Order: sequence, then C-alpha cells, then structure tokens
Amino acid sequence: MKLSHTAARRILDAAIAKADELEQPMNIAIVDDGARLVAFVRMDGAIIASIDIAQKKAFTAMALMTDTMNLGPRTQPGQELWGIEHTNGGLVTFGGGVVLRDAKGEPIGAIGVSAGSVEQDVKVAKAGAAALLK
Amino acid sequence: MKLSHTAARRILDAAIAKADELEQPMNIAIVDDGARLVAFVRMDGAIIASIDIAQKKAFTAMALMTDTMNLGPRTQPGQELWGIEHTNGGLVTFGGGVVLRDAKGEPIGAIGVSAGSVEQDVKVAKAGAAALLK
Amino acid sequence: MKLSHTAARRILDAAIAKADELEQPMNIAIVDDGARLVAFVRMDGAIIASIDIAQKKAFTAMALMTDTMNLGPRTQPGQELWGIEHTNGGLVTFGGGVVLRDAKGEPIGAIGVSAGSVEQDVKVAKAGAAALLK
Amino acid sequence: MKLSHTAARRILDAAIAKADELEQPMNIAIVDDGARLVAFVRMDGAIIASIDIAQKKAFTAMALMTDTMNLGPRTQPGQELWGIEHTNGGLVTFGGGVVLRDAKGEPIGAIGVSAGSVEQDVKVAKAGAAALLK
Repeated sequence: MKLSHTAARRILDAAIAKADELEQPMNIAIVDDGARLVAFVRMDGAIIASIDIAQKKAFTAMALMTDTMNLGPRTQPGQELWGIEHTNGGLVTFGGGVVLRDAKGEPIGAIGVSAGSVEQDVKVAKAGAAALLK
Repeated sequence: MKLSHTAARRILDAAIAKADELEQPMNIAIVDDGARLVAFVRMDGAIIASIDIAQKKAFTAMALMTDTMNLGPRTQPGQELWGIEHTNGGLVTFGGGVVLRDAKGEPIGAIGVSAGSVEQDVKVAKAGAAALLK
Repeated sequence: MKLSHTAARRILDAAIAKADELEQPMNIAIVDDGARLVAFVRMDGAIIASIDIAQKKAFTAMALMTDTMNLGPRTQPGQELWGIEHTNGGLVTFGGGVVLRDAKGEPIGAIGVSAGSVEQDVKVAKAGAAALLK
Repeated sequence: MKLSHTAARRILDAAIAKADELEQPMNIAIVDDGARLVAFVRMDGAIIASIDIAQKKAFTAMALMTDTMNLGPRTQPGQELWGIEHTNGGLVTFGGGVVLRDAKGEPIGAIGVSAGSVEQDVKVAKAGAAALLK
C-alpha cells in the first residue's frame, strides 16, 4: 500500500483536531515510505523551530523505521546509538515521530509532530496515525 | 493580515482542484510573510524533485516579493540579476511561485507549485492564490 | 507590533553600552518575529566564532519562543529535548538568547549575544531587551 | 588599519541615509578584512532574500577584493570566471558590493547592499563606503 495524499491529508485533519482539543498549535509533517514529504501544516501560533523539527521527526521515524521516542534511551551517553543524531543532516531522538502502518502492519510512511511538550506531540502524532486505517 | 493555516489549506484545496482539472499531479507549498512554510502537499505521482522546487518557488516569491516568472528575463546572461539564484541556498527563476496578497494588496505569503510544465505550474499557483480572497 | 530597524538599533546601542561597562566585546544579533536577521554588530576584538553563535542564539530564542538559558536543563542526557540542538541547522542551548516582548508581552523578535562568559552574555542580552520598551 | 565597529556603524548610518533619500529600504552588510560580518541592518520593509544577498555581496567584494559590479562581465558564458559563483557557498556577480579602502587605498573590508534595483544598491553602497574616510 502506498500512502496517498488524500490519506495524508486525512491524517493531518485528525492531528489538527487533536491539537485543537489540547489547545496547542502544532507543526505536523507526513512523509511516505521513501521518507519524502507528502503533507505539512503549521497551525497558527506554532513555533517556527518546529517547522524543521516536525519534518525531521517524520523523516527519522520512517528512515529508521521506529517511533522517535524509542531513540532517546538508545542515544544517551554510553548507549548503542550514541551520536546517531549527527547523521542525515540531523535526526530527532525524542518523541513525536510515529511510523504509519497499513492494515498488515507494513510501514508506509511516518508522521512528525512538534511545538508542544513532547507528551503533547506524541498524543497528536498518534491521533494522526490512527486516522490512517479509518 | 497574517496568513492563517485555515486560509493556507483553502488555497491548497483550490490548487489541488486545478491540478486535478489539468490531470497533472503537483507539489504545492505555501509560506507566510516571513517566508516560512505553512502548508505543503505532494499529490500522488508528483515528481520528487519538486518537493524542493515548490518550496523554493514559494520562498523566492515571498523573499523577493515578486512572482518567480518575473525573474527569468532579469537573470539571463548579461542581465541585471545574473546569478542571483546562487544566493539564499538556491532561488528559482522560472514561473510557479506567486505572491499571495490580501484585500489591500499587501503581500502576506506566497504559493509555489512544481511538477508540471511551467505553464501548468503557473496556472495552478494562480488558481491557489485566487482562493485567498474568497 | 512589528520590530522596526530603529528599535533594533536602539537595542544594539543598549547592549553595546552594557558590554562596554563589562569590558567584554560582544557579537550581538537581533531577529524579527519571523526569526530573520534585522541587525547585527561585532564589537572590536569579539571572537569570530560568536558571529554565528550570536545569530543562532537569537534564532533559537525566537524560533522556540523561549530564552535559550531555559534549554540547557531540558536538553541534558535523559531529558525531554535531548538532541534538539541538531535541528534547524544548529540551535544553541545555553544562555544569551532572549525573547523581545512588546508592551503586551507578545514576542516580536529576539536578541542573541555571544563572546563573553555565558553570564556576561545574558547580562548584555537582557540590557538590550530592556531597551525595547524605553 | 583595522575596521572598527564604530566605523562600521558610521558607514551603516551613511548608507541608511542614502537609502532613505532614495525611498528604498535596504539590507546593508559590512565585513572586515577577514570577510567576516561586522555590522548589518535590515531596514523596515526591505525584502527578506536580501538579508543573504547583502551579506554575500560584502563577502564577495572582500574575498575577491573587487567591487561585485566588476564580476558581471567576467562571469558571463564563455568568459574567464564563468561559474565562480558556485564557490564559497554562493557569490554575487552583480553590483552592490563595494570594497572599503583606508586612506592609503588598502582594502580593510567591504559593504554589501541589496533590496533595490542594482543601480540603487550601488549608490547606497558607495555612499556607505564614502563615509569610511570622513
């Protein structure tokens, strides 16, 4: 299954709805299975730095094929992936990047969310990801 | 007037509708008055190179405050702005980037469209821009 | 309220005065609400590395909408924003970047100061920021 | 003679005065003999793209030790310096970058001006440069 732009925009809508519910404007990016940008939105008032961070979270999740929250523990001093964030022009090693999986569990892209607390970012990313199969 | 993400997405919708009409999938990017990304979509089948080109067209239009189609003649060999495209990490000097203006004619952002012929790109960008004031 | 270049230069003057008082030449950068450079000065003898650091501090403060001194604790190993400095082409996570706020408390830009000790940088940045509302 | 930040700001003042006279807001950058930024200002309403172009003009003038207007003819197709603008992260090959020379004619820095027509840019840059020896 290939991620369509129609599905990507449906995911965006769900993520925006969750962000509105949390009253936290977000930057939201969606990439396809080639880790290339498919859709993006910056909500009114979302911080500028997160334009890049949201995209890097989506890239990181798809390019490493794992949710970014899994990278924090593995990139700490002395740990296995120490320093991996210096590759690929910058990876993000905290939560907010979530792999999008089709009905069979195959990764077909990723969503990256940034601008709130990491906890909020993760909630919005998961709300977006859940909309893929709806 | 500040470009809202709601307005940006309405512009995207209008641009996508025109691209569908032309049967030419497009990459479409919208930036605000700070030339920072607000919204983006890559339609199914649109070429990958245009992810960057569409964003650079939108940036170029806002950052130079002129539609990109105006830059072609002025950047030819021997002309006034010869070589300007090597600044700002790369500017685009052909059509497809259009300034978004509010009801007073003030620039509040720009749209950049890429993946079709330049003529098609311009048509889609203008269709998007026209939706701002609707 | 939009940050004018007149206000930006008044802020520079105040920052330079404080730097002179501390007998520590500084690099001082000011960005607007789009995190784009408005004014800059490198005082005689200020270190070259700080040309970039001062600008990155100002960018970081505005783009994350927080003084850079707040980022140190949150980006330590094991903390929430671990590794965020690898985004946006490099962020600065220690003091010296201060958000500029108008009379209503709205962020309209930021000042970044670098070349002294972090404590000195912060003092000079705050002296500059205080001049906005004078 | 080393370019002081006091002299750089006097040059800025003169350039701003000329830009005001021409009613054309400008981005103005000044570099020292190491082609490193000393002072910068973006006047209200000056286009964003010129933040980079003004700095690149100043860099180009000092780093090649020639006013940028001299590079246009030499970088045309078939000419001696064809393609040089691809080096150094991007050089500018049209007018608006002017070498600053001390009383002995020694280059001690450069000024780069951008945002108006090239003719206006050159006028403002020369007005700034002339203030060095006043």
